[in-house]
Amino acid sequence: MGGLSKVGTQMSRMSGLRSLMEDVASAMASTAGAKWLNLSIGNPAAIPEVTQMWRDAASRAITDDFSDAVAYGPSRGAPALVKAIADYFRRHLGWNIGPENIVVGPGSQMLCFAAAALYAGEDGSGARRVGLPSIPDYTGYQAICMVPGGVAGVESGWRAGEGRTFHYELDLDAMARRTDVGMMLLSSPCNPTGRSLRVDEQEALIAIAERMDVPLFLDHAYGRPFPRIGPTFALPVLDPHVVNCFSLSKAGMPGERVGFAVGPEQYITPLVSFLSNSVLHASGLAQAMAARALSSGALDEVVASAIQPFYAERRTLTEQLLLDAMPADVNWRLHANEGGMFGWLWIDEAWFNDVDLYDELKKRNVFIAPGRSFFSAPSEADRHSTQCFRITLTVHEEDLREGIRRIGAAVAEAKAAARGFTGTRPALSR
Amino acid sequence: MGGLSKVGTQMSRMSGLRSLMEDVASAMASTAGAKWLNLSIGNPAAIPEVTQMWRDAASRAITDDFSDAVAYGPSRGAPALVKAIADYFRRHLGWNIGPENIVVGPGSQMLCFAAAALYAGEDGSGARRVGLPSIPDYTGYQAICMVPGGVAGVESGWRAGEGRTFHYELDLDAMARRTDVGMMLLSSPCNPTGRSLRVDEQEALIAIAERMDVPLFLDHAYGRPFPRIGPTFALPVLDPHVVNCFSLSKAGMPGERVGFAVGPEQYITPLVSFLSNSVLHASGLAQAMAARALSSGALDEVVASAIQPFYAERRTLTEQLLLDAMPADVNWRLHANEGGMFGWLWIDEAWFNDVDLYDELKKRNVFIAPGRSFFSAPSEADRHSTQCFRITLTVHEEDLREGIRRIGAAVAEAKAAARGFTGTRPALSR
Repeated sequence: MGGLSKVGTQMSRMSGLRSLMEDVASAMASTAGAKWLNLSIGNPAAIPEVTQMWRDAASRAITDDFSDAVAYGPSRGAPALVKAIADYFRRHLGWNIGPENIVVGPGSQMLCFAAAALYAGEDGSGARRVGLPSIPDYTGYQAICMVPGGVAGVESGWRAGEGRTFHYELDLDAMARRTDVGMMLLSSPCNPTGRSLRVDEQEALIAIAERMDVPLFLDHAYGRPFPRIGPTFALPVLDPHVVNCFSLSKAGMPGERVGFAVGPEQYITPLVSFLSNSVLHASGLAQAMAARALSSGALDEVVASAIQPFYAERRTLTEQLLLDAMPADVNWRLHANEGGMFGWLWIDEAWFNDVDLYDELKKRNVFIAPGRSFFSAPSEADRHSTQCFRITLTVHEEDLREGIRRIGAAVAEAKAAARGFTGTRPALSR
Repeated sequence: MGGLSKVGTQMSRMSGLRSLMEDVASAMASTAGAKWLNLSIGNPAAIPEVTQMWRDAASRAITDDFSDAVAYGPSRGAPALVKAIADYFRRHLGWNIGPENIVVGPGSQMLCFAAAALYAGEDGSGARRVGLPSIPDYTGYQAICMVPGGVAGVESGWRAGEGRTFHYELDLDAMARRTDVGMMLLSSPCNPTGRSLRVDEQEALIAIAERMDVPLFLDHAYGRPFPRIGPTFALPVLDPHVVNCFSLSKAGMPGERVGFAVGPEQYITPLVSFLSNSVLHASGLAQAMAARALSSGALDEVVASAIQPFYAERRTLTEQLLLDAMPADVNWRLHANEGGMFGWLWIDEAWFNDVDLYDELKKRNVFIAPGRSFFSAPSEADRHSTQCFRITLTVHEEDLREGIRRIGAAVAEAKAAARGFTGTRPALSR
């Protein structure tokens, strides 16, 4: 007795990237005064117009909504926000939805976590897993299930795109063949790659969900209607097997932890109960801010005038910076994307390893996110899973320029050091 | 395939009192214009000085902390709040603690939920349960564990007190005899009874925790050093087997969901990881407000000048109102307590049933909380578990007066209707 349960052992592990974030934080803290270029982060850019919009919403919430907001509220979400969400999607996508189709939670990650508890694990006839049809995908999904081995990822293939770009192709057949899936989950536009589902792919995934009779959770944290940070080919849809997750994090309010899910009552009701039994509900003030921003049109305004243009411009800049900085004789590729918060790079060379680059760049006061944390089963055998890394485009422009310059220099040095390299490498260290 | 997992089935059930709250909400919503006296709620009183203190903290947070507060923060808690907590407990209780002993979460219920996942359930050698050594206790504890049957409550005995009061006595021997416990959890002061652990009881529970080598989670949501709503005999202690949970909910900010746990690093670290993998962290603005209120002394001021006196006065008033309203020839008792947010009544009569009283009072536009939701295994056989109910003392004074008057009238009528009653009753209906 006295120790952690099996679930406890699983949940007391930090997912790969999170433990690495500890390394980032402690390195930055222990070298006060030193200038670090942290390109590993997932924070959205601090865009002044966006911050000001949320600050105004907060001031209004404190003036007009304070007493209600600081009191207990319903686990489905504050009635004003639930109504604002229904109205918003009626206006934007023509959806006819009511409170029974909506649940607000403290972040869409918590809603996905609750879903994984509800739909994966033992169900009396066997063990069900969270199927991730689009690997690489959000690193948090790897730790979303409390059951050890509860996540099953299907790695994508790829095709070359224009210039230095490449593009992942979902392996829908592999997904369809699985017999152990209790739910599916993917982000589109995708963190880390920026990839968006096409309409035909979304339809194919829905068909798989229908045949398996499982819910398909689509995480639109970067997409439409807000924050439109990445390109979006397939719009969110109402479907008996689809639960759409939205988040205000990338629209500038990650620290307030407000997300919501919209879908069939059959899947929304258990999520409400799960919240009621665990976290109770999201912050009342943050919900009041969100209701104001959605209803007034203020969110749509900053999306169109500030957020979407900012990231599109950053993307163009980043592509140019990479062309300037990366050694031309290295086979590097950038995942295709027409905007987005991250750059996803693949160094398609036998001598390259994401964690070695992390260590090398750390010596140069730069942090990147090694790519393996975004794969379900990274290994040296599956070389691609250890040959990618993610950089954020959200830091100050000067830091982005200098960071990419140092990345290019580090890659060039790695290539030089590998001259005569035979292709065998030491065992996977992280 | 396609259905809920075992955990899902468990978690998609609302605990007894929560589903009843739906009944309360829908009754109140469907009779717009009708005046309801809702004495079933768990909201703290809206005390103007307290609301103003939090409003000021919110304004300051928006002015001075906004950009940091709305960005992602660490799962342990915002550094300013973690530091404020360490300083606060050094000042108040002489504790020498650092960040490694602290975790902030979106409400102390979420921390208890995480603990139940970490320490109850299968651990390789068998199934462990959340042991509740002080039943009746917080209704949310009954749904705190995702494993079906994962909660094991030990029902207290009782002794008569002065006048109409009675007092629960913990059955520590029964607790000590259990062999299936992975953690212990209780609220002190207790919701619903207002009972506080004595020092000898706290020491005995710690000895049991030590022998079992399990953590003892003590939920101080109503106690010292804040909000001091109930009497507190045993102060929170630092001990290798104790995790102390604190909440700002009853100090006036329930909707913001800020709670924290203080204890040994061994138990705090897995909680941080659990949050990181699920809800990520509590609202940043709410954490900034909490840091300000703790550091500035503003929280202590309102506790001393407003919160503690308000509830003490309400308690005295309630005792008098009950003496005036309850039929003298009914064997009713009120749990002893020197303050507190609730009155916990026991109608020690064979003809009495908490759910019947709920139904009867609903007809009179009054809501109470039936007591059975606070027991682990309520049954007609264990009569006491269906003979209690909870009333809140936090509503407007006029509503409290009129509500208690109607409760007294309903109980008198039930007694009259039961004349010649033989002691057999229909089967348990809820």
